[in-house]
Amino acid sequence: MSGKVYLIGAGPGASDLITVRGAEILRRANIVFHDALVHPDTLALAANAEKIAVGKRCGKRSTAQRFINKRLVDAAHRHAVVVRLKGGDPMLFGRAQEEIAALQAAGIDYEVVPGVTAALAASAELGVSLTQRGVSRSVTFVTPRVGDNEPDSEWVQSVLAADSAVLYMAAGQAAQIAAALQTAGLAATTPVAVVENASLPEARRFHVSLADLADAAQWRISGPAVIMLGEVFRQADAVSEEAVADSMVKRVGSRR
Amino acid sequence: MSGKVYLIGAGPGASDLITVRGAEILRRANIVFHDALVHPDTLALAANAEKIAVGKRCGKRSTAQRFINKRLVDAAHRHAVVVRLKGGDPMLFGRAQEEIAALQAAGIDYEVVPGVTAALAASAELGVSLTQRGVSRSVTFVTPRVGDNEPDSEWVQSVLAADSAVLYMAAGQAAQIAAALQTAGLAATTPVAVVENASLPEARRFHVSLADLADAAQWRISGPAVIMLGEVFRQADAVSEEAVADSMVKRVGSRR
Repeated sequence: MSGKVYLIGAGPGASDLITVRGAEILRRANIVFHDALVHPDTLALAANAEKIAVGKRCGKRSTAQRFINKRLVDAAHRHAVVVRLKGGDPMLFGRAQEEIAALQAAGIDYEVVPGVTAALAASAELGVSLTQRGVSRSVTFVTPRVGDNEPDSEWVQSVLAADSAVLYMAAGQAAQIAAALQTAGLAATTPVAVVENASLPEARRFHVSLADLADAAQWRISGPAVIMLGEVFRQADAVSEEAVADSMVKRVGSRR
Repeated sequence: MSGKVYLIGAGPGASDLITVRGAEILRRANIVFHDALVHPDTLALAANAEKIAVGKRCGKRSTAQRFINKRLVDAAHRHAVVVRLKGGDPMLFGRAQEEIAALQAAGIDYEVVPGVTAALAASAELGVSLTQRGVSRSVTFVTPRVGDNEPDSEWVQSVLAADSAVLYMAAGQAAQIAAALQTAGLAATTPVAVVENASLPEARRFHVSLADLADAAQWRISGPAVIMLGEVFRQADAVSEEAVADSMVKRVGSRR
């Protein structure tokens, strides 16, 4: 006898950008293991559940993945509806495979409920489509490896080969990324958009060139952010945003 | 005086995989212009709206994009809540930019409500994460250009450079894609998963090698489908699916 574990994508931030199915399962959840990045309003949908923060940013260090796996299995032996709630989508930079493998090994039933990934919320926020007729037929979603900034690195080559690129978990190493991509041959003038806290009221967006991405530390990004590159960000709509971004950069810059 | 136009992602198919926000706007919509691929159960959420099929597969040929743009602008002059409902997410292979540009030019307020894209629903369906620690740090979403199958084509290079790849609007030219990728150097044994009608009861999934993707015409795929490639599809879970897929391929194959 064991319950079922639902790996649910919480979406990009705003509590109404979770799927209808995800919200309904949360409402009948007995226990929810959630990333610390999941918004409190989304967690509140699980009105009757015990809530346990796991994963990154929940404390001094993240809970070890193996320990999360074990807790999911244990919870399924005690509860009917167990939820593992992840920011964005579980299957994109969510380490879901390790949890799925643990559940399968323990013979526990599971279901993955997909979610809106941060790149798409950021794109909606900007009003700039990641693919565009005649401009972009491909978009790569990638996370750079810390300290691996050689021009022939796989993540660098993936960015260079795609028409548009979205870098996850990258804002903290923006200067190194800007340098690595330019060394690999990407033009310094390549348009870049950075969106922090996409879909939330406190969302911020910055339009710069790849060369100026080196200054990202000035922006003091603390929320989840994506770095987006490509010609699509040079489009009309992006230009209209630039005025906003410029004033933002100036404001932030003046804190120096 | 004009209404607001909402470009909403309907998600991959199942009506409860739209976002809570998307469902709420549909409920108060006056008029909905929808892709023919949007599921009837999702359309039914717009209980009080006039519903107009536009885009591909709605008839003998698709409505011209320029005509859709004009209808959105006209509708905003007559209705408070106008919805443009697109399969998956509007900003990924959705031609949203052309509609946004038309709305901006006409001075009409708009909002993009992101959705779950097909690749993520297919990944959930398979139980295989597109990114995996130590296996895949990048995934490219790409649509091949019909007839452009040279090894140095941009779409081919984008697939080769990423650890995982998802090809949209590609199932109809699967054999040409398989040939192009092998000519460009991708191993014939590269694991491939094809998911049709992800998230719907009639979903089908096929696990094959890149070489055997050439036989895809046998599967008689008629619903929306994604072709997914990469080492992640060789993982434990994929293996467990293979038995299912094998029997399916055999069953479909026996129709010959």
